[in-house]
Amino acid sequence: MSLTRRQFLMRAGQAGGYGTAFVLMQSLGLLPVPVAAETEPLRLVDGKGTRVVILGAGIAGLVAAYELGKAGWSCTILEARQRPGGRNWSIRNGTEVDFVDGTRQTCTFDEGHYFNAGPARLPSTHHTMLGYCHELGVALEVEVNSSRSALMQADKLNGGVAVPERRVFNDTRGHISELLAKCVRKGALDEEFTDGDRERMIEFLSQYGDLNRDLLFRGTDRSGFKIPPGAELAEPAVNDPLAMRELLDADLLFGMLVEETIDWQPTMFQPIGGMDRIPMAFAQRLDSVIRYDAAVTRIRQSDAGVTVTCKSSSGVEETIAADYCICAMPLTLARTLDADFGPPMRALLDKVEYDCAYKVAWEAPRFWETEANIYGGISYLQQMVDLVWYPSARLFSEKGILVGGYSMEFRPGSPPLADVLATMPPVYRATTANGYKFGHLPNMQAKLEASRRSVELLHPGHGKDLTKPVYISWGQIPWNLGSWISFNLGDQKTLATLQAPDRRIYFAGDHTSHIVGWQEGAALSAHRVIRQLGARLESGG
Amino acid sequence: MSLTRRQFLMRAGQAGGYGTAFVLMQSLGLLPVPVAAETEPLRLVDGKGTRVVILGAGIAGLVAAYELGKAGWSCTILEARQRPGGRNWSIRNGTEVDFVDGTRQTCTFDEGHYFNAGPARLPSTHHTMLGYCHELGVALEVEVNSSRSALMQADKLNGGVAVPERRVFNDTRGHISELLAKCVRKGALDEEFTDGDRERMIEFLSQYGDLNRDLLFRGTDRSGFKIPPGAELAEPAVNDPLAMRELLDADLLFGMLVEETIDWQPTMFQPIGGMDRIPMAFAQRLDSVIRYDAAVTRIRQSDAGVTVTCKSSSGVEETIAADYCICAMPLTLARTLDADFGPPMRALLDKVEYDCAYKVAWEAPRFWETEANIYGGISYLQQMVDLVWYPSARLFSEKGILVGGYSMEFRPGSPPLADVLATMPPVYRATTANGYKFGHLPNMQAKLEASRRSVELLHPGHGKDLTKPVYISWGQIPWNLGSWISFNLGDQKTLATLQAPDRRIYFAGDHTSHIVGWQEGAALSAHRVIRQLGARLESGG
Repeated sequence: MSLTRRQFLMRAGQAGGYGTAFVLMQSLGLLPVPVAAETEPLRLVDGKGTRVVILGAGIAGLVAAYELGKAGWSCTILEARQRPGGRNWSIRNGTEVDFVDGTRQTCTFDEGHYFNAGPARLPSTHHTMLGYCHELGVALEVEVNSSRSALMQADKLNGGVAVPERRVFNDTRGHISELLAKCVRKGALDEEFTDGDRERMIEFLSQYGDLNRDLLFRGTDRSGFKIPPGAELAEPAVNDPLAMRELLDADLLFGMLVEETIDWQPTMFQPIGGMDRIPMAFAQRLDSVIRYDAAVTRIRQSDAGVTVTCKSSSGVEETIAADYCICAMPLTLARTLDADFGPPMRALLDKVEYDCAYKVAWEAPRFWETEANIYGGISYLQQMVDLVWYPSARLFSEKGILVGGYSMEFRPGSPPLADVLATMPPVYRATTANGYKFGHLPNMQAKLEASRRSVELLHPGHGKDLTKPVYISWGQIPWNLGSWISFNLGDQKTLATLQAPDRRIYFAGDHTSHIVGWQEGAALSAHRVIRQLGARLESGG
Repeated sequence: MSLTRRQFLMRAGQAGGYGTAFVLMQSLGLLPVPVAAETEPLRLVDGKGTRVVILGAGIAGLVAAYELGKAGWSCTILEARQRPGGRNWSIRNGTEVDFVDGTRQTCTFDEGHYFNAGPARLPSTHHTMLGYCHELGVALEVEVNSSRSALMQADKLNGGVAVPERRVFNDTRGHISELLAKCVRKGALDEEFTDGDRERMIEFLSQYGDLNRDLLFRGTDRSGFKIPPGAELAEPAVNDPLAMRELLDADLLFGMLVEETIDWQPTMFQPIGGMDRIPMAFAQRLDSVIRYDAAVTRIRQSDAGVTVTCKSSSGVEETIAADYCICAMPLTLARTLDADFGPPMRALLDKVEYDCAYKVAWEAPRFWETEANIYGGISYLQQMVDLVWYPSARLFSEKGILVGGYSMEFRPGSPPLADVLATMPPVYRATTANGYKFGHLPNMQAKLEASRRSVELLHPGHGKDLTKPVYISWGQIPWNLGSWISFNLGDQKTLATLQAPDRRIYFAGDHTSHIVGWQEGAALSAHRVIRQLGARLESGG
C-alpha cells in the first residue's frame, strides 16, 4: 500500500499537473531550487557539540542521531514509548497492543514467533536501509513477496474457488497475446508495422502468450496442470484456461501488478527475527542518547535556540534546551503539541490527513506450505480482507504467523466511499472499496471473522486453524494515529513546506520524502536534514 | 534448460501429434495402459529379502535403495565414482574435474564456497524432493531465481548497454497494452466484445500497461527511474521507455519467460551449503548399501535372476547376483555395457542422444550486489554466453560464486545449426544458436573468455575481477557423457520402452519420466520402479 503517494505523484506528473505548478512556484521564488536525489555518500559536517533535540525514535530520528553523533553533534532523542522504532514494531509473546479507544490485546504467540505490525520488507533497491543493516550487523534473509503457488480468489472467477496466481498471470498473458495477434493479422495495426515487423510481432506474441499454431490461446503449462507430469507414462495435461471475461470480472490487477511495482519487485529482504532488529541495533549504539517515556508537550523557539518540554507517564515534566530540533514524529501528533510553529507549517498541520492501514496476524500450523506449496508470497482476494500474506521466516517449520489482511481501512466518519475512490489511482480502487467495508464492520470480532473467512476461502477447512489473533489498526495506535500521510497531501507544495526549516525546527520522516510509507524514505529524510543542518552550521548557524 | 523435453511434449500434444500416435499404439496393444501421475504416498511392498542391484548412485538409485531398504528389500548400489549424487555434484576447493579428453581442472575456491555443477534449484512444486529434504534433515534456503534488478543485454537494445530486466518486462507490457488498447478502440475486436466488455478491457489494459490518459505508453515507474525518488524536493523521473522494435530485435523472450516456466516459478529453494547435501544425506543412511569405485561392465539375465559384473579402478572384478536390477545410470553409459538387453531397449540405446549442458563458474567479489543491487536472479544476454546467474548463497558476504553461462553447447560434430534449430521450440532458438557458437569455440580458454566477456558486458570493468574458473561440460564428464536425454527422443514410445521392464531389469532416472533434467523426475521414476517391483513380487515374482 505504501507506494500510493508516490505513484499518485508520478501519475500527476505525467499529466503535467504538479510539474507545471512546481516550476511556476519556483520561478516566483516560493520554493527552493531542488537538488538531485541522494546518490552520493552522506557528507557530515563537524557539529562541534551543537545540541540537537530529536522528537521521536522512529527510523528518521534514529538515523539522524546516529549520523550526527558520528560527527560531534550532541543529540538527545525524546521518545514517548518505552521502545525505539515507531511503526517499526515487531509483536511477540507478551507484547501489549493498546488502542486509543481503550481496547487492549496481549499477544500470546509461541516463543520465537513475531509479527511485523509495521514495515515488513526491505526492497533491494533501498540502498540506505540495506546499508544500515550491513553497518549495524542486522542479519537479513530473503522475503519472498511473490509465489506463483499463492492463490487468487474472486466470487466471479472459477466459480469462487481460489486458483494459483500462475493461472491468473499466464492465462491473462495468453489472452492478451491472442487478442493482439488477431488484430495484427487483421491489419488493424498496419500503420504501426512494416511487413517484417508484423511477422516478428506475431512470432513474439506466439511465444509471449504460448499460443498454438493458429495463434489461439488454449492453455499453457505455465498455468500448471490438471494431470501433473510425473514418472508414469500418462501424458500431463495443462489446466483449462480461465476465460478473459472472468479475469476482467475478478479484477485482481492489484495482486497481479504487485511484483512489478518498483518497491515490491524481487529481490526483497527482512531482518531475521523481526523488523525491529533494525531500531534495536540503532538503539544499542545510541544508549544514552535516547530518552524513553518522554512525551513531548511543548516547543518554543527563539533566536538563541529551541526548548522542548516533555512529560513522563508518571507526570514528571522536564525541559530540554538545544540549538536545533528535528521533529521526526507523525504529523498527527505534531499538530497536537503546544508549539510555536510558523504559519506555513501550522496551516499544513491543520489540514493534514493520515491513512489508517491495518493488519491482522494469526498463529497457525503451516497448512499453506504442506498442502498448497506456498512458501512466502501473498494471496489476493476480492473480499473485505483482500490479501493473505505468508511468512518467509522459518520456512518448513511447524507453525507460522499468517497475516490475514493488510490494507487501508476506512472507519466510520470517513468521507463517503465515492469521494474516497475519486482520489485513488485506478489500481487501488478495488482494494479501497474492500477496506471501506472492512473498516465499517461493527467491532474487532467481526474484523477477525472477516480475516478468518478470507483464509477459509483460500484454504478450505483451515479457517478454524487460526489462533491467537492480533489486530493492528494504525489509526488507533497511540503515538501514531495513522499509518502514513494521505494521498491528497502528496503534492510538491506540501513537500516543500515539510522540507523547509521552520526557523530552528527541521522535519524528518517518510512523510517528508518521495518514499512515503517506507523506512528508506525516513532514513533519506534524516540525511536531508543532516545536510541542511551542516550547511547552516557552515554558514554561521 | 531442463524443461525442454517436456515442453516439446506439451507442444506436440497440443498439436495432436503424440497423443494421437499414443492412443493408436495403445489400441494395438503395443503400450501398457497409463496410470495417473503420482499423487498418493508411495506404497511399499515387503521385499522379504528380495535382492536388488542398483546401477548408479544418482538420485534415482539413491531413492530406490532408500525406499526399498525401508521395506525389507536387500539392495546394493554399484557406483563407478567415489561419491554419490551423479549429476548432483557440488564443486569445492580441491575438487578435481576430469574430462574424457584428459583435461583436468582443480577447483581452488576459497573455503566455504561451492558451485552446483548440476542441479542447483528445487522448485516448491517438486513435492517429492522437498519431502526428502525434510525427511533427511537437509536444510533449505530460498533460491532467488528472478530479480528485477538483474540485467538484460543485447547489442540491438539500448545501444548495447545492459538494462535492468524491470525495464524489459514492464516496457514490453506497456507497449503490448497500448497496441491492444488501440485495436480495441478502433473496433478491431468488435466481434469479440460487447460495448461493456470493450470499456472494461480498455480500463484493464490501461492499468496493466500503465498507460496514460490517452492510452499511450510513455514510461512507467515499474521500469525504474532516471531521477530516483528520494527525500529532496526534486521530482522523480521514470526511465524513458525502450522501443518495442528494439525489444523485438533484442529477442530476450527466453529470459522474460523463465519465471513463468512451471519449474522455474517462485518460490524455489537450494540446500544450504550445496546441492550435494541431498545425496550425502541419502548416502549416510545407505552406508553399507553403496559400493563406490564399482564400474559396471556386464549384465546377464536369466529366469532365476540377474548378475552384474563390476570393476574397480585398480582392475579388480566382481560379480553380484540379484533377483532384479534397477539400471539408473545414464543411457550414454548403459549402451556401452556388455549387457543382454532385449531388442526394444537395444534399439533405443542405439539411437539415444544426450544433450550437452555446460556451466562456467567464477569466484569474485560481489560487485553485482554492491554496485547493481542484484541479489540472486539471472541476467540474460544475446551473446555466446547468454546468461549470468548470481548466487543466492551467503548474500551480502564478501565473495561469491558467479555462474557465467549455463546452456546447452553444441560441439564440433553436432549436426548443422539449421538442423538443430529445426528441432527446437521457438523460445529456445536464440539460446540454441548462442550455444552452437559457444560449443564451436576452439578451446576452454576461448570459452572462459566468452564467459568473462558476457560478465563484462553486464558489469563493465568487472570482467577482470573473475577468478578461479571452473568449466563443466557434461558431455565431457566421465560416467555421464551428457546432461540429459535429447529432445528428439522425447516421445511416448521411447518413454514406454524406458518404463517397461526389460525382463529383470528396470530403468530409472529422470530420462524415464516426464520431468527430464530434474531430480524430481529421477525420484518419481524410482517410485515407479518400486511400484512395479512390488506388483511383480505380489503377483509371484
